[in-house]
Amino acid sequence: MDMHYSTARPLRIEEVPLWHIETDVAVVGFGAAGSCAAIEARGAGAAVDIFELASAPGGSASLSGGEVYVGGNGGTDVQRAAGFEDLTEDFRSYLMMAGGPAADAERVGLYAEQALGHFDWLREQGVPFKGSYLPGKWIEPTTDDTLVWSGSEMAWPFAARAKPAPRGHTVQFKGWGGGKLLMEVLCARALEVGVVAHYSSRALALIIDSEGAVRGLVIRQDGAVCYVRARKGVILCAGGFIANQDMVRRFVPQALACQLQVSGGNDNGSGIRMGMSVGAATLNMQEFFATMPFFPPASLVKGVFVNERGQRFINEDAYHGRVAHYVLRQPNGRAWLLVDNAIFGRPVIQENIVIAAVGDTWAELEQELDLPAGSLVHTVEAFNRHAAEGQDPYFHKHSEWLRPLSEPPFAALSYCQGDIDGHAFTLGGLATLPSGEVLDADSKPIVGLYAAGRTACGLPRWGEGYSSGLSLGDSTFFGRQAGFTAASCG
Amino acid sequence: MDMHYSTARPLRIEEVPLWHIETDVAVVGFGAAGSCAAIEARGAGAAVDIFELASAPGGSASLSGGEVYVGGNGGTDVQRAAGFEDLTEDFRSYLMMAGGPAADAERVGLYAEQALGHFDWLREQGVPFKGSYLPGKWIEPTTDDTLVWSGSEMAWPFAARAKPAPRGHTVQFKGWGGGKLLMEVLCARALEVGVVAHYSSRALALIIDSEGAVRGLVIRQDGAVCYVRARKGVILCAGGFIANQDMVRRFVPQALACQLQVSGGNDNGSGIRMGMSVGAATLNMQEFFATMPFFPPASLVKGVFVNERGQRFINEDAYHGRVAHYVLRQPNGRAWLLVDNAIFGRPVIQENIVIAAVGDTWAELEQELDLPAGSLVHTVEAFNRHAAEGQDPYFHKHSEWLRPLSEPPFAALSYCQGDIDGHAFTLGGLATLPSGEVLDADSKPIVGLYAAGRTACGLPRWGEGYSSGLSLGDSTFFGRQAGFTAASCG
Repeated sequence: MDMHYSTARPLRIEEVPLWHIETDVAVVGFGAAGSCAAIEARGAGAAVDIFELASAPGGSASLSGGEVYVGGNGGTDVQRAAGFEDLTEDFRSYLMMAGGPAADAERVGLYAEQALGHFDWLREQGVPFKGSYLPGKWIEPTTDDTLVWSGSEMAWPFAARAKPAPRGHTVQFKGWGGGKLLMEVLCARALEVGVVAHYSSRALALIIDSEGAVRGLVIRQDGAVCYVRARKGVILCAGGFIANQDMVRRFVPQALACQLQVSGGNDNGSGIRMGMSVGAATLNMQEFFATMPFFPPASLVKGVFVNERGQRFINEDAYHGRVAHYVLRQPNGRAWLLVDNAIFGRPVIQENIVIAAVGDTWAELEQELDLPAGSLVHTVEAFNRHAAEGQDPYFHKHSEWLRPLSEPPFAALSYCQGDIDGHAFTLGGLATLPSGEVLDADSKPIVGLYAAGRTACGLPRWGEGYSSGLSLGDSTFFGRQAGFTAASCG
Repeated sequence: MDMHYSTARPLRIEEVPLWHIETDVAVVGFGAAGSCAAIEARGAGAAVDIFELASAPGGSASLSGGEVYVGGNGGTDVQRAAGFEDLTEDFRSYLMMAGGPAADAERVGLYAEQALGHFDWLREQGVPFKGSYLPGKWIEPTTDDTLVWSGSEMAWPFAARAKPAPRGHTVQFKGWGGGKLLMEVLCARALEVGVVAHYSSRALALIIDSEGAVRGLVIRQDGAVCYVRARKGVILCAGGFIANQDMVRRFVPQALACQLQVSGGNDNGSGIRMGMSVGAATLNMQEFFATMPFFPPASLVKGVFVNERGQRFINEDAYHGRVAHYVLRQPNGRAWLLVDNAIFGRPVIQENIVIAAVGDTWAELEQELDLPAGSLVHTVEAFNRHAAEGQDPYFHKHSEWLRPLSEPPFAALSYCQGDIDGHAFTLGGLATLPSGEVLDADSKPIVGLYAAGRTACGLPRWGEGYSSGLSLGDSTFFGRQAGFTAASCG
């Protein structure tokens, strides 16, 4: 077969020569969103076929930390056992702030109400959570504990508007990478309930009828084109687009400052492009998660970031991804983390950190870094004076992380562009209702089309507001909504 | 006729009952881009029909200052007569910086090469330019002079990377609002060369063939639906979407901070939505022009902006729209312009400016504004010390605008959210080639579809880089490209 399909153009149903596969719900992508969508669609009685580009299931989620961001309704049993109450209103307020200027109140509201039940659902599928609390400041727990502080909950301005609680719930797994276990369980569960999985299957194009409704999917499998009829709809759960350099350059060029992709490699944007091909709107395509974790060791959180003006620009106790966005936007991409001898360390995740300047006085560092005369000395003097009193009137860093930087020698760790490895994935995607229905330019649902996970613009839609576990929480929960809606209403 | 059309869904050509109008090129929107597209399409021998929602031509451009941003090739005759050389490379470099992270090198390159000829073309159409130079810092000239500094050319960091030249070329018109004259000339010219104009005509939907190529347009005219066949293509020149509150909320929520729309009222996004309906990609939808002009009087440029941390954040001699974007993003939307007695004035465009604090010492103002103790005093002290030497090592404000703020009484003019009127229009739009061809999700042209002006994502695509005259320069020049391409290749 010599026809050339494009994810950017739908096929008209009258051009389909035959249906190789007929099902109720066709899911594209067997990752976090796709597995949960498939399980729910099966649960609602639909026949479900899932198409995965890779030769095995799991998607990018299987490379993640296996952390889901849940709370509200007074708190999960794990939160409560650790002594944390988590009211739905606080959870909701935090999520709205985390969503940034484009936060979706309806989506946030639904999640805040139902996340507790969702956590139970994940355990019912067989996902193990030990139930224990791990205090401290971590990127991901390296132990098999469950509950960690995984966002900016305790940091300004979040803490001022929502009572803080830890909400990162991590799969029971020793070391980093619990996402592998999470996805093994969810994918096995999908197969167990009767989802038919097709691997090494590339989605080529959507199939539409004369009304523009989505009726199926063109797939390439083992080199052959295969037409899939989806009686109730197609659910796009094909991930984001960080692995597609052309799309990154077009839609989120600022992410090019980060060299490392948070992706299993197949986040090529095909789901988003197929959605666009049938008139779907995209939202927040310029947004991305970024990080250049500067801790552990947690002592470094007591350091102070400055830019080439010798000015501070962020409370360093905010989530590391929020700090990264502020670092990335400093003039000329230049920033340094200032430390003294007492807190010095090399970031675990960047042990080859460039030490840009060392000296016995801040004036020496100021000169070595070629900052305006007096700028750094003033900044550190003001910081130290207030820190000694447990105050940070400028940036409101929590007193827990405040101490004067007064023990020489002093050092400046370079977070300048080129000196540091940034990690990124995309947060923009198809416009959807919380139900998973994909929306067109007029905000009307496109019949037969659903999306979830990073193919959709979901809960996490603002790099500065990201918290670990938001993407997995969003993907699994809204994947379920999409699966249920497609099976019930499609 | 009871059919309900949606700009978000195309009509299939087989459903068209009859063609009320048959033409070669159908242009949607009789503004800056549309008029120029129509003139060029006619010039290339095509029959052209233009459909305008309003009852008269001109679009939002007719409310503008009538300024076009042109230069390069050594300079226009006006630039050269005023003593300015303007090399294409400097013009190109400036435009690339102005375009921001998503600048389009191909588009910028074409414009930098051909803007000089475009200026001649505008004069050939009958647009009058007096040819004189008006020095100084203006929002728009109130005289009928031609050449003004209309961007950030002389400001850091632009001046450091591109030799500055004034490039705003304004129509010969006394007072503000030369855009009215510009559009009268261009629209009259279009009619003169035989373009058929239809007013009070609302574009309802695009018409596509079985290959997805655009073949026409559905219009509502005098309450009746009208099918328009466009043999060579449809050119969408329907403006941006600042007048569509739903779209603003979805795509560019940060513009909600500006209460005033820079629009004739019909920038409802219909062109962008029709493009999306046939699979066009959109770019930079989150970007917008914003301004809260704080001068004239130009003396205020010698003031200093600070945020609630008592920190400066911008060189105040940058373009007023760039300054506005920095003001808008300060913590809690709070910023003040500090002035002393010698430079005090009320901004002409905001005479009801709120004076948030007055005092005989900066310490008094610091306290009145409730800033961290010592913060403002330090900032002004450092600024004054350097300014006395004609230096600004922190923000690189040009020495022309540097003087110590040392003559009491001192005042803080409020640029806090709620105290100030912001003006905005949108910069995101359809992805196009410089030729005007609209691109799909895979960056491939959609046959029969073209776009220009604010319906497209053009030269101006970064609020922080905007310069007056960029949008009109882009709309008229790339309108012409789209018209020529459609007529020649469609």
